[in-house]
Amino acid sequence: MFQDFKLVGDRPVAIQVKEYVKRLIIKGALQADQRLPSTREMSGLLQVSRNTVIAAYEGLEDDGFAYAIPGKGSYVAAMVGHLAAENGGTDGPAVWQIDWKARMNEYAVSAVELDRIKQGIRGKKGAISFTSIAPDEHLFDLGDVRRAFMDRMAIEGQVLLNYGYAKGYKPLIDYLMRYMENKGVDLSGKDMLITGGFTEGFDIVLSALRPSARRGAAICENPTHHTAIKNLKLQGFEITGIPMERDGMDVERLEAVLQKQTNRFDLAYLTPSYHNPTGIVMSPAKRSAVMKLMMRYQIPVIEDGFNEELRYSGAHVAPLIATAGQGNGVIYIGSFSKVLFPGLRVGWVLGDRALIDTLESIKRARTIHTSTIDQSILYQYLLNGNFDKYVKKARTEYKRKYELTKACCEAHLPEAQLSGDGGLHLFLTFPTGVNTRQLLEACTEQGVIFTPGDKFFIQEGEGTNTLRLGFSRVTDENIERGIRIIGQQARSFLKAKR
Amino acid sequence: MFQDFKLVGDRPVAIQVKEYVKRLIIKGALQADQRLPSTREMSGLLQVSRNTVIAAYEGLEDDGFAYAIPGKGSYVAAMVGHLAAENGGTDGPAVWQIDWKARMNEYAVSAVELDRIKQGIRGKKGAISFTSIAPDEHLFDLGDVRRAFMDRMAIEGQVLLNYGYAKGYKPLIDYLMRYMENKGVDLSGKDMLITGGFTEGFDIVLSALRPSARRGAAICENPTHHTAIKNLKLQGFEITGIPMERDGMDVERLEAVLQKQTNRFDLAYLTPSYHNPTGIVMSPAKRSAVMKLMMRYQIPVIEDGFNEELRYSGAHVAPLIATAGQGNGVIYIGSFSKVLFPGLRVGWVLGDRALIDTLESIKRARTIHTSTIDQSILYQYLLNGNFDKYVKKARTEYKRKYELTKACCEAHLPEAQLSGDGGLHLFLTFPTGVNTRQLLEACTEQGVIFTPGDKFFIQEGEGTNTLRLGFSRVTDENIERGIRIIGQQARSFLKAKR
Repeated sequence: MFQDFKLVGDRPVAIQVKEYVKRLIIKGALQADQRLPSTREMSGLLQVSRNTVIAAYEGLEDDGFAYAIPGKGSYVAAMVGHLAAENGGTDGPAVWQIDWKARMNEYAVSAVELDRIKQGIRGKKGAISFTSIAPDEHLFDLGDVRRAFMDRMAIEGQVLLNYGYAKGYKPLIDYLMRYMENKGVDLSGKDMLITGGFTEGFDIVLSALRPSARRGAAICENPTHHTAIKNLKLQGFEITGIPMERDGMDVERLEAVLQKQTNRFDLAYLTPSYHNPTGIVMSPAKRSAVMKLMMRYQIPVIEDGFNEELRYSGAHVAPLIATAGQGNGVIYIGSFSKVLFPGLRVGWVLGDRALIDTLESIKRARTIHTSTIDQSILYQYLLNGNFDKYVKKARTEYKRKYELTKACCEAHLPEAQLSGDGGLHLFLTFPTGVNTRQLLEACTEQGVIFTPGDKFFIQEGEGTNTLRLGFSRVTDENIERGIRIIGQQARSFLKAKR
Repeated sequence: MFQDFKLVGDRPVAIQVKEYVKRLIIKGALQADQRLPSTREMSGLLQVSRNTVIAAYEGLEDDGFAYAIPGKGSYVAAMVGHLAAENGGTDGPAVWQIDWKARMNEYAVSAVELDRIKQGIRGKKGAISFTSIAPDEHLFDLGDVRRAFMDRMAIEGQVLLNYGYAKGYKPLIDYLMRYMENKGVDLSGKDMLITGGFTEGFDIVLSALRPSARRGAAICENPTHHTAIKNLKLQGFEITGIPMERDGMDVERLEAVLQKQTNRFDLAYLTPSYHNPTGIVMSPAKRSAVMKLMMRYQIPVIEDGFNEELRYSGAHVAPLIATAGQGNGVIYIGSFSKVLFPGLRVGWVLGDRALIDTLESIKRARTIHTSTIDQSILYQYLLNGNFDKYVKKARTEYKRKYELTKACCEAHLPEAQLSGDGGLHLFLTFPTGVNTRQLLEACTEQGVIFTPGDKFFIQEGEGTNTLRLGFSRVTDENIERGIRIIGQQARSFLKAKR
């Protein structure tokens, strides 16, 4: 014992001695209530001065790893981790073990089960991956981001680093309110909450609207954003999906579902522009029809502003919350994550003032407030005029890739029906019978991966013939090569079927 | 109509025309299905070219605010906000109004009711406020923070701005694991999740441990951190408080509570060092006794590492998770918010690996991940060696203020019993009968505010004779003046009582 002590570097010797003995105690090499060598003995054993040992022992006592008995010496304190025998009555040393799996509730178990990232598709090293719809970081204008940070820190660094407000960073809220007003939103009676991205905003809204006494009921496009499906399920909602057509959800089906007397929906979740995963922009006629139905049945609409900024042709279609005028039935959740920088966790919830006031309290209870640094960088970046410049550049680049991907699909995957009016991905539907999970397996062998479409569908077994191709982070060469490989594999699948 | 149109600035004229007409539609000045003036007419009315009007009308159609009937002209699209009459059968224009208050569930209603910030104590302008225990921003070393950001951006700016991992920023996790190991924690079988501060970590842990089928049962010190009380209540826990003594919770009472067969606790929430609000550091003997009980009754312990770094004398007492050795019964939640910068929303949960794996999925479902910028600034700041330097400076300054506050209390408030071994506040207990809410009212009149202590107690009506004095953001002069005023008011209360 005590022979492996070695002095290193320039840390105070007493601290090194203390840490050394502490480690022995933690490991169980020194037992509870065992007497430590006297300071004189220890000084000889470790080859350090006696005063050093005295200081080290005092430190151990301060830290709760030892205790002194006056006139007798220093003793090892009981480590709870080594007390199982004493408490449990079993023999030999044991440690305090809780079976955490058994303690997890339904919510926690579901969170793991529904965690697609953990069951994610992983390609071989060097594989061509169409699974991501994150932005291409090579487009990031790092200089402008740095400048935004430095500008803001110079103006109010002390404010940024101390506590902020649950509702959000005021200058950013004011800016985004104007931004939404420019999209045609009537701001009267409305307010805004800043969140750590779309997902937090969505989860907070659901946690407020989820009925207390029964399971919730939600309506949404089918397929739809898989994270939204996950969060709806986690919050206990039954989901009714409305099939997608070329120009948005099937309105007749929607009306039929709403008319059934047994159905009472707590909310609708809609992505009218660049819908994920289909990329479809809902037509003005359908928007109007859908909104009229939601109004007639008094169903609150959660609008996902996803990718609204990435339209490649024409002007923006107004968000649903704009067409609601002074009405308060739409909750708009926005984020620049797909357009700008996902690493900055900032999103916003725009809606009725009384609602936002409640959501603010929930936000405070959950996370106090969103990172002020993130919010202030985003604000200053917008204020400096970097946003328009960047979006222009990004849009040009993504449009080029979008057209390349589309052309490659048309050339190599003529069997598949394409959808996607913009954004960072295309959605493919194969003839029934082509199972895209099996196709993925074959493609993975060939070094190409993509996202099977079934995970975007509400019911198990739906969409097994679909897939999503995210192209934002794939090089031109790999887009061409990857899609050709998917095409080859798909054709052999189709041949085998016949 | 159309007479108040004015061209401004250098925005394209067609866009100005489009926005102008859009506003008229949103306001309801132009009705649904009303024919817009022909492009020729409008050109004359607004004094702009006909091509400009054509472009503007096309823009309105793209945006969904107008529609064209070939050969007839452009018509105003139906705005859902103006459709109440059509749908509801009532007369005149109305808007879609949802009664959000009626839609809020118990959780949302409780979140508002328990939101102390909204019912916060507000002093007059220029009042001396002892309500905050946030750090003093004048101590912030902004230059070091800027450098940390610039250093990290130079190394991996593209990585920082794209999506990160739910578990956290790897370099920071590695750093904090070593940091905790240096506090004596045995890391075997343990893992770490980065969260947006203590509160998010705590709320995620509670959401996983809350029983599905019944109300949860939690045990904690009484008084305790009011945000923890709030989150426990919000997550449906019944709370059993154990009274505090000078050296930590009353262990006999704890044992008595645990022995009752009817009690089965799902967790204990403990703040062993610089407990909020009392400032007490639990003695090593009590730590050991409490941990033995928790182990015997198999109650998971959530340890709040709050302010651990702000001890003004002696070394650190080891956290409970260190004394648990290889045992997995303690979940440690740490944060530098009170020591460093609350604006950087970063905290960490250290615990059993299987548990952390589940919490990671919950974190992902709620907020995807914590701001990478915040995490990377903190990491680089630590790596650059700024932390030790800053804590030394902050500790010296806060210690001085702590001693000044203590001396002032002893001089001006001799009736009150003081507690607080460190940190950024002191806790005062007056003789029974002195109601500190009434005292606060009297002091507010005199321009001094503080936090009445009752909000830190579990049951309504407890601790009505206590208060918390946060001194971190009060100048020396105001500490002296403010406490003198509280003393004067307290004395007249005590006189009136006799």
